[in-house]
Amino acid sequence: MLTDDQDAVGHELLDFHKSSSGFEIIERDDGFFDVTGGPSVYFAGHSEWPSHEKRALGDVRGRVLDIGCGAGRHGLYLQEQGFQVLGIDNSPLAIQVCRERGLSNAQAIPITQLSYRLGTFGTLLMLGNNFGLFGNQRRARWLLRRFRKMTSVDGRILAESYSPHEATTLPEHRIYMQRNRRRGRMPGEVRIRVRYRTYATPWFDYLMVSKEEMAGILEDTGWGITGILASDTPAYVAIIEKRGT
Amino acid sequence: MLTDDQDAVGHELLDFHKSSSGFEIIERDDGFFDVTGGPSVYFAGHSEWPSHEKRALGDVRGRVLDIGCGAGRHGLYLQEQGFQVLGIDNSPLAIQVCRERGLSNAQAIPITQLSYRLGTFGTLLMLGNNFGLFGNQRRARWLLRRFRKMTSVDGRILAESYSPHEATTLPEHRIYMQRNRRRGRMPGEVRIRVRYRTYATPWFDYLMVSKEEMAGILEDTGWGITGILASDTPAYVAIIEKRGT
Repeated sequence: MLTDDQDAVGHELLDFHKSSSGFEIIERDDGFFDVTGGPSVYFAGHSEWPSHEKRALGDVRGRVLDIGCGAGRHGLYLQEQGFQVLGIDNSPLAIQVCRERGLSNAQAIPITQLSYRLGTFGTLLMLGNNFGLFGNQRRARWLLRRFRKMTSVDGRILAESYSPHEATTLPEHRIYMQRNRRRGRMPGEVRIRVRYRTYATPWFDYLMVSKEEMAGILEDTGWGITGILASDTPAYVAIIEKRGT
Repeated sequence: MLTDDQDAVGHELLDFHKSSSGFEIIERDDGFFDVTGGPSVYFAGHSEWPSHEKRALGDVRGRVLDIGCGAGRHGLYLQEQGFQVLGIDNSPLAIQVCRERGLSNAQAIPITQLSYRLGTFGTLLMLGNNFGLFGNQRRARWLLRRFRKMTSVDGRILAESYSPHEATTLPEHRIYMQRNRRRGRMPGEVRIRVRYRTYATPWFDYLMVSKEEMAGILEDTGWGITGILASDTPAYVAIIEKRGT
């Protein structure tokens, strides 16, 4: 579990929840710094979401596990629609914010600690680029196999990613992707940490993939892509359903 | 002179000049990170400036030295008004941006290299919180004495600062100011660097002072405060004029 000093995202969310101001800095292990759309994006209402995310929520069925639920924007929306939702996040303060905002079921659990003990789900939600929480290919395949045991026969994963190949012209990103290839990593695998005020998360792997790369990761895991919700950016949502193994 | 790798602010300004997007991260030596209003603030037009800055520009007279001119917003405005302006900044890329935007006279010179060799000025402009470029009390007093020789008999400095005492309730800032006091530094003296993409400036001192603290620094330098342009924030502009010594 993250300590309070490590809970940079949680502090960011809690401050924004209280004051509607804040920022989110990403530090990559090559010394590249960036500022994301967070925290305001994590509190955005349904009308502000990109259309491919809105469409994805129309494909939700059954009990929902919102993986990396953040401030709970998707979970709260689905709960209002009558779905039974459990939100999980590795940030204890994010979970506190979800509860304060009215999410009935929210627990501080890292993605690697998910198991069938939480019950069976009809939909695993990984929106907001949360396919990235798999971290790398090996861990993705290990967790996808575990996710089979956590889901109903017709269970599905709605996972958002961002194709790193279509994304950017920045030379730092091209160099980083080339370095990844040389090291046998996927091009869109980044090692990063989040910084906010004096808080810094531990370094963690985060994975961005094209549709083709995602299909490759899913091979022999018992899951396959049955639909793609595209956007006018490199972001997309994959509808992932069970395949006979 | 800053190397290209160190010219984080310059790259930030050049990118924004080309693409109208970007960010500015400040890292403080206690591990505190913040995101400023830059770079968009540095390109803001006259109508967007805070009223105390607009009023300050009404007090300009004679030849103008814009110290820490950034993307040249104040210098360009005054040049259009018919003033003769020299913009200086320690960032070579900032100076390139100033020239591309039409500032006729702009040179990459750090504040510590300013001298009477640049000629005589009627107004030294230190807006945009640029009193902070003095860095610390000792350097401020050394440079203020030098500034006397660079200015006409009725020369003036228009210097903006930000009172650190009125500013914030964040515990990190209170702790930092207490640490400064223990070390014999001024409370609002911060050691920071600017980060942008993979670029990072060297660490530098930056000074924020109340009106009373500024008056104390000016003692026996041959300068004194003759007017304060206040705002509804902790920011203010001091009109500083020569005193007999």
